[in-house]
Amino acid sequence: METIERYGGPEQKKQWLQPLLEGKIRSAFVMTEPKVASSDATNIESSIDRDGDAYVINGHKWWTSGIGDPRCKILIFMGKTDAKNPDRYKQQSMILVPRDTPGIKVLRMLTVFGYDDAPHGHGEVLFENVRVPASNMLLGEGRGFEIAQGRLGPGRIHHCMRQIGVAERALELMCKRSQTRVAFGKRLAENDITLERIAQSRIEIDQARLLVLHAASMMDTVGNKAARGELAMVKVVVPRMTLRVLDRAIQAHGAAGVHDEFLVGAYASARSLRLADGPDEVHRNAIAKLEIREMAGATIAGGAASVNPS
Amino acid sequence: METIERYGGPEQKKQWLQPLLEGKIRSAFVMTEPKVASSDATNIESSIDRDGDAYVINGHKWWTSGIGDPRCKILIFMGKTDAKNPDRYKQQSMILVPRDTPGIKVLRMLTVFGYDDAPHGHGEVLFENVRVPASNMLLGEGRGFEIAQGRLGPGRIHHCMRQIGVAERALELMCKRSQTRVAFGKRLAENDITLERIAQSRIEIDQARLLVLHAASMMDTVGNKAARGELAMVKVVVPRMTLRVLDRAIQAHGAAGVHDEFLVGAYASARSLRLADGPDEVHRNAIAKLEIREMAGATIAGGAASVNPS
Amino acid sequence: METIERYGGPEQKKQWLQPLLEGKIRSAFVMTEPKVASSDATNIESSIDRDGDAYVINGHKWWTSGIGDPRCKILIFMGKTDAKNPDRYKQQSMILVPRDTPGIKVLRMLTVFGYDDAPHGHGEVLFENVRVPASNMLLGEGRGFEIAQGRLGPGRIHHCMRQIGVAERALELMCKRSQTRVAFGKRLAENDITLERIAQSRIEIDQARLLVLHAASMMDTVGNKAARGELAMVKVVVPRMTLRVLDRAIQAHGAAGVHDEFLVGAYASARSLRLADGPDEVHRNAIAKLEIREMAGATIAGGAASVNPS
Amino acid sequence: METIERYGGPEQKKQWLQPLLEGKIRSAFVMTEPKVASSDATNIESSIDRDGDAYVINGHKWWTSGIGDPRCKILIFMGKTDAKNPDRYKQQSMILVPRDTPGIKVLRMLTVFGYDDAPHGHGEVLFENVRVPASNMLLGEGRGFEIAQGRLGPGRIHHCMRQIGVAERALELMCKRSQTRVAFGKRLAENDITLERIAQSRIEIDQARLLVLHAASMMDTVGNKAARGELAMVKVVVPRMTLRVLDRAIQAHGAAGVHDEFLVGAYASARSLRLADGPDEVHRNAIAKLEIREMAGATIAGGAASVNPS
Repeated sequence: METIERYGGPEQKKQWLQPLLEGKIRSAFVMTEPKVASSDATNIESSIDRDGDAYVINGHKWWTSGIGDPRCKILIFMGKTDAKNPDRYKQQSMILVPRDTPGIKVLRMLTVFGYDDAPHGHGEVLFENVRVPASNMLLGEGRGFEIAQGRLGPGRIHHCMRQIGVAERALELMCKRSQTRVAFGKRLAENDITLERIAQSRIEIDQARLLVLHAASMMDTVGNKAARGELAMVKVVVPRMTLRVLDRAIQAHGAAGVHDEFLVGAYASARSLRLADGPDEVHRNAIAKLEIREMAGATIAGGAASVNPS
Repeated sequence: METIERYGGPEQKKQWLQPLLEGKIRSAFVMTEPKVASSDATNIESSIDRDGDAYVINGHKWWTSGIGDPRCKILIFMGKTDAKNPDRYKQQSMILVPRDTPGIKVLRMLTVFGYDDAPHGHGEVLFENVRVPASNMLLGEGRGFEIAQGRLGPGRIHHCMRQIGVAERALELMCKRSQTRVAFGKRLAENDITLERIAQSRIEIDQARLLVLHAASMMDTVGNKAARGELAMVKVVVPRMTLRVLDRAIQAHGAAGVHDEFLVGAYASARSLRLADGPDEVHRNAIAKLEIREMAGATIAGGAASVNPS
Repeated sequence: METIERYGGPEQKKQWLQPLLEGKIRSAFVMTEPKVASSDATNIESSIDRDGDAYVINGHKWWTSGIGDPRCKILIFMGKTDAKNPDRYKQQSMILVPRDTPGIKVLRMLTVFGYDDAPHGHGEVLFENVRVPASNMLLGEGRGFEIAQGRLGPGRIHHCMRQIGVAERALELMCKRSQTRVAFGKRLAENDITLERIAQSRIEIDQARLLVLHAASMMDTVGNKAARGELAMVKVVVPRMTLRVLDRAIQAHGAAGVHDEFLVGAYASARSLRLADGPDEVHRNAIAKLEIREMAGATIAGGAASVNPS
Repeated sequence: METIERYGGPEQKKQWLQPLLEGKIRSAFVMTEPKVASSDATNIESSIDRDGDAYVINGHKWWTSGIGDPRCKILIFMGKTDAKNPDRYKQQSMILVPRDTPGIKVLRMLTVFGYDDAPHGHGEVLFENVRVPASNMLLGEGRGFEIAQGRLGPGRIHHCMRQIGVAERALELMCKRSQTRVAFGKRLAENDITLERIAQSRIEIDQARLLVLHAASMMDTVGNKAARGELAMVKVVVPRMTLRVLDRAIQAHGAAGVHDEFLVGAYASARSLRLADGPDEVHRNAIAKLEIREMAGATIAGGAASVNPS
């Protein structure tokens, strides 16, 4: 939805953004491919080829989140329109593909830690000679990478805010359990080890929240590009923090912990966020390169360019 | 099976051990209760009351692993025969309960990180006025705690050995993936960060294996009781090691990692082992108390007595 | 200096605060005792006994920081004026003791990780029948604990701010070293492992700084008492963060790292801050108790009362 | 001493090994250079040039451990005899240099975490046109790398064994302190947090000891080369383990911990062992490459060849 709001033309917005905003339809973002490391967007192999006043789309995608929902009516597809362009950040384009276009085949729905996340769902999807009008192109040919960059910041902040809420809830459950559960003659909360974990969780949640607020403030004041270091930081920090807090909460709940729908489902979800939108490793590289540039006045070639091309 | 082999009488062995060994039937161990911290076995609330030449069993149990299997024919039930005995380690008994005895009701099957582990399964089970012959008692009234202790060592060693195999397999997958997957122009195995994680995994697996072998050797040479510190150590060390190795392997696999049936299923299983048979915290306490006794020549009262009553 | 500014009377300020502010003299705070766990201020054994219009002071102290400086002219001594008071937070008092009063004997100067921190220094000091005028009492008898609480917040914030500067400097050195040092045919900064450590350091420094700024803002807006949770958090977070960053910087410098005066001296100093003004453990307990009270609506008795008596 | 025993000729042994074994003299190993990353031995810049029946030695070295001792009479110097050899592992040689040869100048003694380790000491040493007989060459020109490899295994095992003894002593001190020190109304040993740390220390010490014993056994049974993976593992594991145990022991001792000569001195020493004989990073790389070769049937070029050239 945000991508169309930000990069769509007036006609595109009228046709798709309006019903999205009204909640009548849903969208899905189609980028990741099973055969290549998609955190490096230059690896993408799907093709979007011009043919008269249409584009013909071919590609094998997965982790197309939301495609399982019957309300999903519009896809944003990333592929290459110009695979031989020497500037590897100009090869990609994004294009709108109505869900009911012929040639789109959902091979299977993927599970995350055993969860299918229905009805939303994550699909492995084949695109075979899918034909859409040329006017469905977003922003223009060769600007797919630029759009991918532009949509990441807001998406990450949203994910991170939700994760902090999850961690707060897990800590609350842990505190309540620690107050009521008795083992070896005392409540868990009377053990220093429980207190240490609660304290550490509170500290880590607060530090993560402050970092997210700081990144959000940077986005508002200096823009997404200047805030790209901070956006990479929240991406690395928040899911890992949430996982630690959830793990402590699971442990405090004993056997009930590994069975608790909220704790375990949240764990699966947070774990996948360490990989979605680029693994931690890619973001740490980007942060470090900004740091070295700042601190040592030098630039390191190569690396996480697809995430932070500056 | 091992409990009956070790603590059953000739008649009990003939009736149940023989078909177990032949693989014709399965057994389940019924100990943990949802309402109390069962790592402290003295908390158990289920009752086994003598009534003429029978015992009448009442109790609410969960995490009865294996009860979902249709081949499961015999249960070993732990409850209290003498709840008022001043020696709280003499209150419990274990008794054999045929699966088809009236009054046994499986309320639901529990999931572990979303997995139901069918057909084996983990049940929440209600026992209401379940009546069995007095001859089904194992070893004698008041000796349930003693049996619980005696069966733990061999059980732990088995779990740990399997976990090491799991970790070895995860490392192998990680090595293979690192050799073939290319991101940002080089194979993952060409990044120092990948190498560090592979090395760390190899180190941790080998250190865990050596500890398990050492504990097994102690069991054989000085007995389970003298080896209780080592048995507690492997219980703490091995599942945590396996989780770290699995987590690195998941990360190395990118989005495929959180979807991989082996990696994710093994993660769920290893996570539950940090709680099954007593949480890490209980075992660490036991280890530390042995250590302080050794090092500082003193005994600390209270604590993890149910695990290591010495 | 801040203690006298905050709790001293007009005469006391005139005599001691003025020359302190002018930098002509220095002060030292005399609280910790070798024989008891001084993080629990109720343990203090030194005595301050009224005798006519004077007080007579006796006690064995250590970690009296600053007493080595020849400019140190005034001591703030904490001891018990009423050791039998049933309210154990009313037993202590603080009193001004001119450095040249007879009966004060510096037994030795203590080292920290081998450093003597001269000329400042940390002394082990004996007070034998040290006699000062009754007017030297700060705030009033029995209010020592109250003063100890009140002075902690500002002191901690200062320490933490300095530590963040130290960490920034260490990261800068690490970045520079990584840009210039070549091993196995490439600069350290070309290894992902170096980048990960730089990124992690930047993240941790920024998260620590934001937490310190937040705590400082709370002190200014809602006061030291309402901010006691945040003040405990920075106390736990910042020295540990600095130690991690310094350790990475040392490692990046190879053999030169363990020899580098700045890195190693800063390490020793940051390590001692995990113990000065109460060890991490005491502060985590306090944070957790506030959290449980908030989250589970309950109060846990006992524990770290001397740090956060509320 | 071991290097001469292993690689010296009969005359060399007679002259130097005999008095070394009798404890009459000491030796020092002269390898590390301040200007290059010496973990990569191919970086070494010192020269050993043939001139008639002598060699002329020039170079700037540091961390020459033991040169501070007046009993130090013989040096083993590593430098290049053939800097242009296309096989970069054949460029180096090792040669015996009597300590009193003209041209050897100790520029300064280096400190480790502030410690000078007198009388032993670590020297920064300049060699200017130091002339020794050609017969002082060890094993032959171009075989310095081979000797460096051969002496590492035994050296590491010795270091590791000593470190385990240090960790045992630290744990003993921690246990004793925990039994006697009272804070907030109870002994430290009554806090679960103390018990967790003691248990974790015991586990880590035992796992490290088993790994060292395993490596030693491999050296004896299959030889140093086949055991190079295990030797790299103990190098990475043991000093890090010792540091963690020492850090916990320091923390348990409160302010006395950072002042304790044994704990702090041992910490400095263990910290330097993470860098001496190659930093952790180099050894982890070597372990991972062996692992990938084993697991994925492939060889990764480049990297930590100087440590494990296979």
